[in-house]
Order: sequence, then C-alpha cells, then structure tokens
Amino acid sequence: MNIAMLGSGFIARFYADTLHAQRRRDQITAVYSRNETNAKRFASDYGLNAYSTKMAKVIKDESIDAVIIALPNHLHEEAVMACAKYGKAVLCTKPLGRNASEAKRMLDAVEQAGVFAGYLEDLCYTPKFLKSVDSVQAGSLGRILWTKSREAHPGPHSDWFWDKDLSGGGAIIDLGCHCVEIGRNFIGKSVRPVEVMCWADTQVHPIEAEDHAIGLVRYENGAIGQFEVSWTFRGGMDLRDEVMGTEGTIWLNSFLRTGFDMFTTGKGGKYVAEKAESDSGWLFPVGDEAHELGYPHMFTDMFDAMEQGRAPLETFYDGYVVNAILDAALLSAKTKNWEKVILEDWRGKSDPRHEKSYASHDEKYYLIKKELLPNGDEKLILKDKITGEVKQETKRN
Amino acid sequence: MNIAMLGSGFIARFYADTLHAQRRRDQITAVYSRNETNAKRFASDYGLNAYSTKMAKVIKDESIDAVIIALPNHLHEEAVMACAKYGKAVLCTKPLGRNASEAKRMLDAVEQAGVFAGYLEDLCYTPKFLKSVDSVQAGSLGRILWTKSREAHPGPHSDWFWDKDLSGGGAIIDLGCHCVEIGRNFIGKSVRPVEVMCWADTQVHPIEAEDHAIGLVRYENGAIGQFEVSWTFRGGMDLRDEVMGTEGTIWLNSFLRTGFDMFTTGKGGKYVAEKAESDSGWLFPVGDEAHELGYPHMFTDMFDAMEQGRAPLETFYDGYVVNAILDAALLSAKTKNWEKVILEDWRGKSDPRHEKSYASHDEKYYLIKKELLPNGDEKLILKDKITGEVKQETKRN
Amino acid sequence: MNIAMLGSGFIARFYADTLHAQRRRDQITAVYSRNETNAKRFASDYGLNAYSTKMAKVIKDESIDAVIIALPNHLHEEAVMACAKYGKAVLCTKPLGRNASEAKRMLDAVEQAGVFAGYLEDLCYTPKFLKSVDSVQAGSLGRILWTKSREAHPGPHSDWFWDKDLSGGGAIIDLGCHCVEIGRNFIGKSVRPVEVMCWADTQVHPIEAEDHAIGLVRYENGAIGQFEVSWTFRGGMDLRDEVMGTEGTIWLNSFLRTGFDMFTTGKGGKYVAEKAESDSGWLFPVGDEAHELGYPHMFTDMFDAMEQGRAPLETFYDGYVVNAILDAALLSAKTKNWEKVILEDWRGKSDPRHEKSYASHDEKYYLIKKELLPNGDEKLILKDKITGEVKQETKRN
Amino acid sequence: MNIAMLGSGFIARFYADTLHAQRRRDQITAVYSRNETNAKRFASDYGLNAYSTKMAKVIKDESIDAVIIALPNHLHEEAVMACAKYGKAVLCTKPLGRNASEAKRMLDAVEQAGVFAGYLEDLCYTPKFLKSVDSVQAGSLGRILWTKSREAHPGPHSDWFWDKDLSGGGAIIDLGCHCVEIGRNFIGKSVRPVEVMCWADTQVHPIEAEDHAIGLVRYENGAIGQFEVSWTFRGGMDLRDEVMGTEGTIWLNSFLRTGFDMFTTGKGGKYVAEKAESDSGWLFPVGDEAHELGYPHMFTDMFDAMEQGRAPLETFYDGYVVNAILDAALLSAKTKNWEKVILEDWRGKSDPRHEKSYASHDEKYYLIKKELLPNGDEKLILKDKITGEVKQETKRN
Repeated sequence: MNIAMLGSGFIARFYADTLHAQRRRDQITAVYSRNETNAKRFASDYGLNAYSTKMAKVIKDESIDAVIIALPNHLHEEAVMACAKYGKAVLCTKPLGRNASEAKRMLDAVEQAGVFAGYLEDLCYTPKFLKSVDSVQAGSLGRILWTKSREAHPGPHSDWFWDKDLSGGGAIIDLGCHCVEIGRNFIGKSVRPVEVMCWADTQVHPIEAEDHAIGLVRYENGAIGQFEVSWTFRGGMDLRDEVMGTEGTIWLNSFLRTGFDMFTTGKGGKYVAEKAESDSGWLFPVGDEAHELGYPHMFTDMFDAMEQGRAPLETFYDGYVVNAILDAALLSAKTKNWEKVILEDWRGKSDPRHEKSYASHDEKYYLIKKELLPNGDEKLILKDKITGEVKQETKRN
Repeated sequence: MNIAMLGSGFIARFYADTLHAQRRRDQITAVYSRNETNAKRFASDYGLNAYSTKMAKVIKDESIDAVIIALPNHLHEEAVMACAKYGKAVLCTKPLGRNASEAKRMLDAVEQAGVFAGYLEDLCYTPKFLKSVDSVQAGSLGRILWTKSREAHPGPHSDWFWDKDLSGGGAIIDLGCHCVEIGRNFIGKSVRPVEVMCWADTQVHPIEAEDHAIGLVRYENGAIGQFEVSWTFRGGMDLRDEVMGTEGTIWLNSFLRTGFDMFTTGKGGKYVAEKAESDSGWLFPVGDEAHELGYPHMFTDMFDAMEQGRAPLETFYDGYVVNAILDAALLSAKTKNWEKVILEDWRGKSDPRHEKSYASHDEKYYLIKKELLPNGDEKLILKDKITGEVKQETKRN
Repeated sequence: MNIAMLGSGFIARFYADTLHAQRRRDQITAVYSRNETNAKRFASDYGLNAYSTKMAKVIKDESIDAVIIALPNHLHEEAVMACAKYGKAVLCTKPLGRNASEAKRMLDAVEQAGVFAGYLEDLCYTPKFLKSVDSVQAGSLGRILWTKSREAHPGPHSDWFWDKDLSGGGAIIDLGCHCVEIGRNFIGKSVRPVEVMCWADTQVHPIEAEDHAIGLVRYENGAIGQFEVSWTFRGGMDLRDEVMGTEGTIWLNSFLRTGFDMFTTGKGGKYVAEKAESDSGWLFPVGDEAHELGYPHMFTDMFDAMEQGRAPLETFYDGYVVNAILDAALLSAKTKNWEKVILEDWRGKSDPRHEKSYASHDEKYYLIKKELLPNGDEKLILKDKITGEVKQETKRN
Repeated sequence: MNIAMLGSGFIARFYADTLHAQRRRDQITAVYSRNETNAKRFASDYGLNAYSTKMAKVIKDESIDAVIIALPNHLHEEAVMACAKYGKAVLCTKPLGRNASEAKRMLDAVEQAGVFAGYLEDLCYTPKFLKSVDSVQAGSLGRILWTKSREAHPGPHSDWFWDKDLSGGGAIIDLGCHCVEIGRNFIGKSVRPVEVMCWADTQVHPIEAEDHAIGLVRYENGAIGQFEVSWTFRGGMDLRDEVMGTEGTIWLNSFLRTGFDMFTTGKGGKYVAEKAESDSGWLFPVGDEAHELGYPHMFTDMFDAMEQGRAPLETFYDGYVVNAILDAALLSAKTKNWEKVILEDWRGKSDPRHEKSYASHDEKYYLIKKELLPNGDEKLILKDKITGEVKQETKRN
C-alpha cells in the first residue's frame, strides 16, 4: 500500500519508524504538515518523494491507497471529512474525537462514504494484550469481574496536549481512551457500558485540564472497567493492566518491567525509552519500543482488513463508544455523580446478562469456600440454601 | 509480659506463633474461647497453663499484663469494655468496630479508664511498609498525590466473616480497614479525610455483603487514598501498595512476588502460604509469613510503647478514624454519591494545606515539561504566566 | 524475495510463521522435505505452490532468491554444499556444523562460491539483546568482565536431537551454540576466545549425550563468557542473560518473566508457549513468541544485508567460531582440563588487551572502595601505591 | 543469655542490632575490641556495662553465657581457642577459618573442650532459604541436580578483607563460604563433596587476591553446587540462589528484587541498604535488612540449640567442610585442574548414591519426552530399551 501521512510530529514518526521497518510491504509515500519545514524534514528522514502543506492535495493523490491521521485531536474531524470526501481509506490516531459528537460525525461520514476506517488504538494491539484477550475469550479466566488499565507518565510531548480546547481534555482524553478500550476488550465489546464514576484533579501542572484521574466504568453485566491515568507519575511510563475473572487473573506490565534490567553509572548515556526519566542507576528499557506499544500488529491488522474486506479489530465505532464513555467520565468528575453513558447508536447486546450460579456443596448447602489451614486442617464454609445461615465445618487431617 | 489471648481461631494462632517465636520475651499465658474444646486445644498447642470459657476470669487475673482481642468483630466491644473495667492494657484486632459508633465507644472506654490500648493493624507494620513510610516522611517522594492499597484473595477463613451482622460488612470491613489505614499513613495521619466514593457489588458468592469493592478517599489537601478489596480474586493473596508523589514512586508487593519462585510437579506438596490456591506449578511462597504480614514488628511496637509510656504507632483513635471512613464507603456504595466522612472527634490539622507551586522557566513562562525525544531533540513545554498560552520550543541536539 | 525452505519440522514452521506474518515482503515459495507427506502438509499450510522431496530441484529453481536450511544438524553440510554449487544465497539454522571441521568446510564452500551466507542465530537478534549490545558498545557498562547466558528446558522437540551422531552432541550443541555467541557479542567478536572449561553430565534422560552442562570460555582480554545449558530444567523454557561490566550490569529475561503473568484454574486451557509445562496455575506466556525469540529481526537483517551487499550481523564465520568453542567444551567435559580453542582461521584482533587502570585517591594511594555505612559514617579503603599496604579511613558524618 | 561480643565493626553492629531488637531475651552485655575508642563507642551505642581491650577478660567473665566472634578472619582461631580454654559457648562468624587446617584445629578444640559451638552462616538462615530447604527435603523438587548460589557486590567494608594474609583470600573466602554452604544444604549435607573446578581472576581492584570467581563443586551423587562470587558487581548487592531438581525449580532473590521498588529524584536521600550504589532513580530496598540476611533466625536457632542441648543447623563441622571445599577451589584456580576436596574427617554417607531410573513408555520403549506443539499435535520421543534407537511419534489432535 501507498500511504499518506497527515502530521509530522512524535506519533507520525513512531508510525513511520514502524512501517518502514522489518521489510514491511506498506510504505509511506507522502506527508502533509501545517509547517513546511517539518514536512520537508519528515520527507527527507523517511525518503518520501512528496510533501505538502495542503492536506487535500496529499489525500486525493491517485497513488495513495490509505491515509493515516497523526494530527492533534482538534484536527481529526477535518481530516476524516476530507478522506471521506475523496473516498480514501482512513486510519485515525486515538482518541477519535474530542467528544462523542465529534466522533459520531466522523463515524457517520466514513460509513456514508463507504470508505475503510480504522481506529489506531495501538495499546489494544500489543502482543501481550492480543494473547490475553485470546485467553479471556477461550474462557481461561471464567466470567470477567473487573479490569484495570493504568497509564501514567510525567506528561505528553507536544504543546497542544496541554491546551484543553485543542485536545478536548487532559489525562482522561489523552490516556483514558487507551484504558477504556482495553477494559471493553476484556469485558466484551458487546456488553453495554452503563455509567461512569470519575475523580479528576489538577494536582501538579499549571494547566486547566486534569493531570490525574481515576474512573470506574460499570457495564450492564455488572463488570467494572477501571482506569487510572496520570501526567504526574515519576519514574517513566507506567503501563499496566489487570483482569480478574471467576477462574483466573491476568497481570500485564508493558513497559517498566518486561525482563530487561540495566544498571549503569551513566557512562555512555543516551535515549533509553519513551518518557524515561533518567540515564543512570537502574533502568528498565524495552527491547523494541514500537512492538511493545502495539504498532506493528496494529498496522498489520489494518491493512490485512482492508485487503480482506473485513473490519479491523478497532473501528471508528469503537472510537465513538470510547468517546461516549470519556464524556461521561469528564462530566462525572464535575458533578461528582455516577453519570450515564449516552450512546444513541448502540450496536451490542441489549439484554443484560447478570446470571450468577452458585456452587452447591450438597442438596442443603451452597459452598462458599474450601480452604487448607497452616495446621493441616481443611475448612468448609457453607450456606443453607433456604435459611441463609452460614456455618463452617473443619476436618482435622 | 504475660498475655491473655481472647479467641483461639486463625488470627489467635497467627499471633501466638509470632509471640512464641524468635526467643521473644513476651508470652501468652492464658486463653479464652467460647468453645472449651478449642480453648483446651489452643492451650495445649502453645503450652499455656490456663484456659477458660469465661472471658472476665481470664482478663482480670492478676498475672496478666496485657490482653489481646482475637475475636470476631461483633465481640470486640464487649471484650474492650471488660478490659477497661478491669484496668488491663488491651490490644484489639482490626477492624476496631463494625462501625464508627462502636469504635468510638471503645475509644472512649479505654481513654476514660486510662488503660493502654493498641490497634493491631498488622499491615501498617510490615517491614517494607515501615521503611516506605520512613522514606515518605524523609521527603523522598515529595508531596504525596495518590496512594493505592490492594488486598484481594478468594475469601476469609471463618463462617462469621460471611455473616454481615456479625462482621459489620463484607470485603470493605474485612480488607478495607487495612487499605484505608495504609493510605492514611502515607498521606499523613494529621490530614483530614473528607469524603469517600465507593463502588461495591456481590459478584460471586451467595452472601448478603459485598465481595468486591473499589473506593476513593479524598483528603483535605487533595490527595487520594484508593482502596481495592476483593473476596473474588483467584491466584492467592494479592497484597500490593503504591504511592505517587511529586518526586517519586513506591511499589510494594508483600505476598505473591517477593523474590521466591518455585515450580514443582506437585510431589511433596503441602501448605504453601495463606490463601495459596495450588500446590503444583509455579508457586510464590513467602519466607516468613508472620514477618511479611507485620506481626513481629507490630507486637514489638505495642509492648515497647507500653513500657515506654508512649502511644503505639497504631492506636484506637486510628481504628476509629478508619471505621468512620469505612462507614462513608459503605454508605456511598448504596447512595452512589460521594459521602462525607463524619468525625465528631478530629485530632489532626484543621487547616487545609492545598498550596501548589509551579516551576518557572523564566520570568515570563512556567515550565510544564522538559523532554528528550528519540531523535535527540530536547523539547520544552511552556505556559505564559499571564496569558495562559501554551507553547513548545524544540532544540535540535 | 522468494525463499525455498529446506525442512518442514518445528523450526521450519517457526520461520514460516515469522516470514508470512506482519505483511513482510519476503515469502516462502517452495519447500523440500525428506518425507512427502510432511512436504505436502507444509506447502498446504503456508499456501506454497511447490514442494518436493528432491533437495537439488528446490534449490536450483530459478525463481528462488534465497534458501533457508531448517534441517537436522547432520544434513546442514550437504544442503550448504548444494546451495554453493547452485550459487544460491543460503541461511543456515544454528548450530552451523556438528563440529568446527564441518563448519569450516561450509564456510569455505560459500566463500569460494561467493554466495551470501547468513547464520540463523536467532537469540542474537532478540530486541532486548540488540538493544543491550547497543548499550554495551556505547560504553554504558564500561569494560565487560563476565557474561552469563543460560538456556534450559525439559528437552528438544524431535527425535534426531536425542541421537548424538545426528545432532553432534546434546545440550551443549543444541543450546550452547546460542549461549556462546551471546557471550561473544557482549565481550566483542574481535576478542579471541582462548580456552574452555566445561562440566557435563547425563543426569536424567536415557541418552548417550549430556543433558546438562556448565562452561566457562576465557577470552584473551580476561573476560569470561559463561554458558549454562540443560535439557533437565522443570518449569518451562528458561532464557536468561547477564552481563557485568566495570560501570554497569544487564539482566535479561527473555521468556518466563517478561511482564505477562496469568493464573487460571485451567478452564479453557490450550497451548501456552514453547516448552511450557502446564496449562493451569500461574503461567508466564510471552506476547509474541517469534518476536521474543528474535526471528523477525533476524530475517530483516539477513535480507537487508543481501540487498545492501553487506554481511549480516551473524555470519558463517561466527558459526564456525562457535563450533570451535563448543568442540573445546565437549573435549574439556571429557578430559576435565581447560582446553584450547583451536581456530586455524582467526579474523579478529591478535593483540591481547589486558590493560587495567586503577582509580587514584591521591598521589600516595589507590582508592579501593568508598562506602556509606548504616550509621552514616563514610569509609574509604586505600592502598599504598608503593608498599601495597591496605588501610581504611572513616569519616563520621 | 548474656553475650560477650568480640569485635566492634560492621558485622558486630549488625549482630547487636539484631539481638537488641524485637524484644528478644538474649542480650549483649560486654564487648571486646582491639581499639579502646571503638570498644567504648560500641558499649555506649548498645548500652553495655562492660567493654575491654583484653579478650580473655571478656570471655572468662562469669556472667557471660556465650561468646560471639565478630573479628577479622585471622583472629578467629585465637578467639575460639580462648573460648575453649574458658569453657564458654562460642558462635563464630563465617568463614570459620582461613583454610581447612585452621578450621580443623578450631573444630577439634571445641569438641575436646565439650563447649557448644555454632557457625554463624547467616545466609543459611534466611526465611526464604529455610522454607526452600524444607520444600527440597519434602521432595517437592525431586532429586537435586544442580544448585547455584551467587553473591556479588562492589567489595567489602573493612581494610583487612582486602589483605590476603589477614582474610585468607578474596571473594572466594569472603563470599564463597556462603555459596558453598547454601549448595550443601540443598544437595544434602550427608552427600560428600568430591572435587572442585574454579576460575578466579583479579579483574578490577589493585589487590593481590581474586575479586571475581566461578566454581563448580561436584558431589558424590553427581549433583553440582555452583558458586559465583564477585567484588566487581555494579548495582548493589546481588544475592540469588537457584535449585534444579527432577521435579521442580526454586529461584530465590534475597536482596535486589524482593517486592519493594522505589523511584526518587533524590530529595530526602539517605542510607538505602547494604552496598546500595545510589540514592536516586529506581532503588530496591529491603524491608528489614537483618531479617532478609537471616540474622534473627540464626540467633534463634543457636540459642535454642544451646538450651535444648542439640546441635545448631550450622556447626563448626560445617564450617570445616566449607573451608575444605574452598581450599580445593583456591588450588584449582591456580592449577586450572579439578582438585579433590580433602576431608580427613568425613561424617556423612560414604556410599555414592547414583541410581537413575528411567520412565518407561511401555515394555519396549523408554519415554524421553512428551510435548504439546503449537499446532496442537502431541509428540512422543521414545527410546528402544534394547537397541537404543530413538524415534518420535506424533498424534494430530
């Protein structure tokens, strides 16, 4: 595929580094940037023939098969509309919109134009995550009860992130979009998110938006998708996910503890990894940063999906649902109430699945718990199915 | 010291194992249990001369210097009152009461009687925790912004835990009391807890009380003390704490990952550790369970404090504050609102400390962020002190 | 590139899975296997047009740009000779030969034929390893003193591995080839390996070859490259490397502890990862097995090198050196002496670099050590440059 | 017990901190030091009534029940002889002697005098280690094949360590004594150590003795006890042990990765832990240093043993065996041969236990290996019991 890149900043370079590595077939051939110097530098760095400061020109070029939007949040809608207009496949950086309305307009535009549209939610494509979701779907964890996704670091790379109007918000929009979608994948995308409770504060930075937030998303089946996001974390970039199910547990650490420990007095220091805060002492690099963050597997799915005429794993519809959840989170942070997730367009299941089945000990009792004690005794905690009385039985072994 | 133990169950045995180990000076000399068989077995197992089914008899015995209450929650008050009546030093298992009213009555009773009273909050005495609090108090983490304490396992040992009337609640009372007090220690006990938001649900077990809950405690200075408690966790006993400050981070893992990994096909299997769920495959024992859970350091502080005529690190007043916070949490879980922490007796600071100071880049700008990019460039994010405008400057290195 | 695969077993499938993933440009188009059923199944599984039981036919086909040898060790030489004969680029699975003589004949053949020849030493291409070598070469660890590479698992996949004549040996040949080359990369490929001490034993399996061995390779500059290999390890596949330098340390864990922990009761069980021993309890999968084992980066380097007319990072010469070191190891295991590494063709440096420089405290003393004691004192250990006397000075802080 | 401490340096203080903590019964009441200022300071710091520069005076005092030798290695013999002479129970710091002859003389002296004698091998008393040995003895790991014990740090605390004549050697004597005894405990103290191969070098420091060594101790039953010791390690104090058995694996990390991670920018910096190299960045403290290093459990066993009239877990005989093994290691480092362990006084088993039993697949075949492949196939590797031929069978699932 021939790809046009819209944007030339941090994320555009990460995408380009990914696509132009590992002898991949799909290559960037043109770049658009608002700033000509940046456009030119990007084209030169990646060996592109074409660069321009005119977005439409780059998009509508006949040689282009797909467009990647790597622009600040406030420019996503304009770019998506242009792709829809010119009938080009479009891949848009997360978050899709600054809010659900914006996201919905983009969703409608690509669906009406009938163009392929992929949502570049890279952290739902890390190899660890993909394999975890496989295990969850295979039933290894039983019924999912709770997920936690955490992204925390000392703050983003570019000025516009820190300006609420351009970005749509602070850490919630910037990082929460990852965490919410990670939770949805584990809990099941067909399960409706119902309401959100969120705490947010601006604890450290001289900005208007929140730099720290914790949220709980309640799903119709009773599962909770927790997110923890911060621009105030010290120590690097903390990317961790957890899942609890009735039959098991998953803990993922995607960045600071991946089996690569290095101590150095600092001789020979240089760039360690995204958001690393030090170049001496104990450091925790990752082997291949793009890979650990999911970029290669994400683009593979996107272009495979285009060729196979199927939807990618992460679609504009997912981006829209995420925005709707984040809208509720931002509102909740203000009202201090649980706020409903407003989804005018819900495509999942509508019947709440809330069935619980209790383990029976025998005809008369439920089994609450069986446990081996340090002194070798075995203890059963039982509940009378009719009276509700709880009792215990201990067997001395 | 000569110690009377009230109770002969799981926790009483853990205490006794701790006190009768490591050639410690203080010894249990008598035990009370409601059940004579249990009292006798306990006395025999630990070589005690005296056992009884009459609580008062055991407490008032002249040879007794201190009483340890290791009874179910609903029996704490009666036992504390008896100790106060007979003028005996009393150490009470966590939680102090089933609610703040009960705790307040106990607090008042011991203060009026003038007896020594210690709150057996073991997890605030683990060696890792004590050293962490030292570091926090020394300023290594700067201003504390957020703490998280998590305790999750497949459920408690005895029948009464599962009965809401006897225990006072489910996972929130049983485990949340640890987590809340851990947060208070890191944030500072003199900082007032203001309000609590809590989600709770009964996701798995056939019981009335919650078996899973997440709560946020907001303190007057803006810090958040998060707790995560569950009786539905699979994989053993998950005990982890985290602290974020403006200058640093602490991560504690007190049980499942402490530098002791064992794989076994299962030959020779036996008791691994509290709440372990398996005796084959990869197992994660702890070296010395009582030590990792804080028991030895807790009793050392308690008896040292008695001898030195000072308060222990954890007092009945702390137990009362914890109960007040948990009351708010239980209420919030029902009302789905942030609920005020009602503390009729507040002994900490009353002036909110909410000052923030921003780092200046120069006279005109605040420094939001300084960062090294992968291509070697250095980027500054700045904010105009007057206009509030955010901009970035990039230096090519 | 169009690639012919020789072999259709475990490693051939791993290579094919790697090459036919992530939208890579280079594709396998033909397969050779001694067994027609296997050849056919492989061709069908990977969508190849051509399969054959005639090796020469597959190699000499005009459409083929490169040949990958994924055959048992005893068939490498024949296959390399055929590639040389037909002038085809050849990539050979590790170890290159069963011994240095065999490896040398292969090296000579490809050099005389002038064909591109790459040594498929995947574990020298894992992303963690590549970044570690970068750090070492940048000086972050100072002068390298010692490296340890460990590969241990419950035993290999195919019958021929267990037959000493076909494989050339046991765990030393099978796993030691990785470990030795990892050590060479860290210590520096231009530093001559001088001698080897090796212990080996057949501790568990009913086989002729060793199933467990430890070896020390001494290099001309005094550095030691330690290898630990075993077919008797329980718990999965243990892949760990360590490096000690005068300025730092690296610890790599490439398989069993990479930030992915999963507990499951076993519902939904299935294939976890290469050599996993269990499908319940605590499991430690890797995200993307081929990636963690280095395959994608290895093939990228190989085909890039072919196109750019340069040598790959791992060459047949490296394979030859590794075989020479392993020959010394196998001999040492028998003679119980340190055995010289016989390298008739040495292309690295020949002058031993053994310079040490000591840190001076002042004109009179070397500084042996400076240390902060628990009580706050600072202690200096000094050595008189002339008399050699050692003394200490303590400053009370 | 009333204890006399001989010595007032680093290790004496560690012992005293341990004994005067946690409300232990046994207390130090007198101290001897060659240097009066140090003796006085020590007595003052620990509240002792008596201090002296006369060793005999301190030892023979009637009030003293036991003597702890915390002196440099070259003074152990003199002190032990004095204890024997005055009939006092004696606990001697590791290593027992500078060599086996010295150790043997001490062993003979205490046995002839009939005094209690304990060998203060603290690392064989860490709680993790004690529980590991329990698991090994319970059979959880099957037959032990290999152990590895590693102690590495940037170098010891006092001048005399660095002087070969006073210490008896370098890292081998200082650290190897721990590692060797750890291996003996896992393999079984009744199994005879037969021979040792050791590499040693002075890689970094301006000293005569080795600052880095690797050794393999071969036991009569074929097990290997590997030791890795260094005074050149960067990053703190590396204390790790590993055990491989036919049924399982144990990995212990006793210092740098124990579930306590802290990042700090360095504000509030102070003493972190023994041999820590930094007070900013990522730090890895331990909760309770004495506990993690085994001191409390060691003294508990020693004094319990004295009272119970039994031998402690670690005796002077163990110290003698360790010295004999280290003598062979030091010799091997020079001769570059495997050197016999010379034990004129062997008290363990004398019949080599080398039996191996192979798993049968059926009457005709041994089972070498059973494995699940990624594509779901199950593979068996079999060996004909008579012909020795190896073959594989694959079942497609």
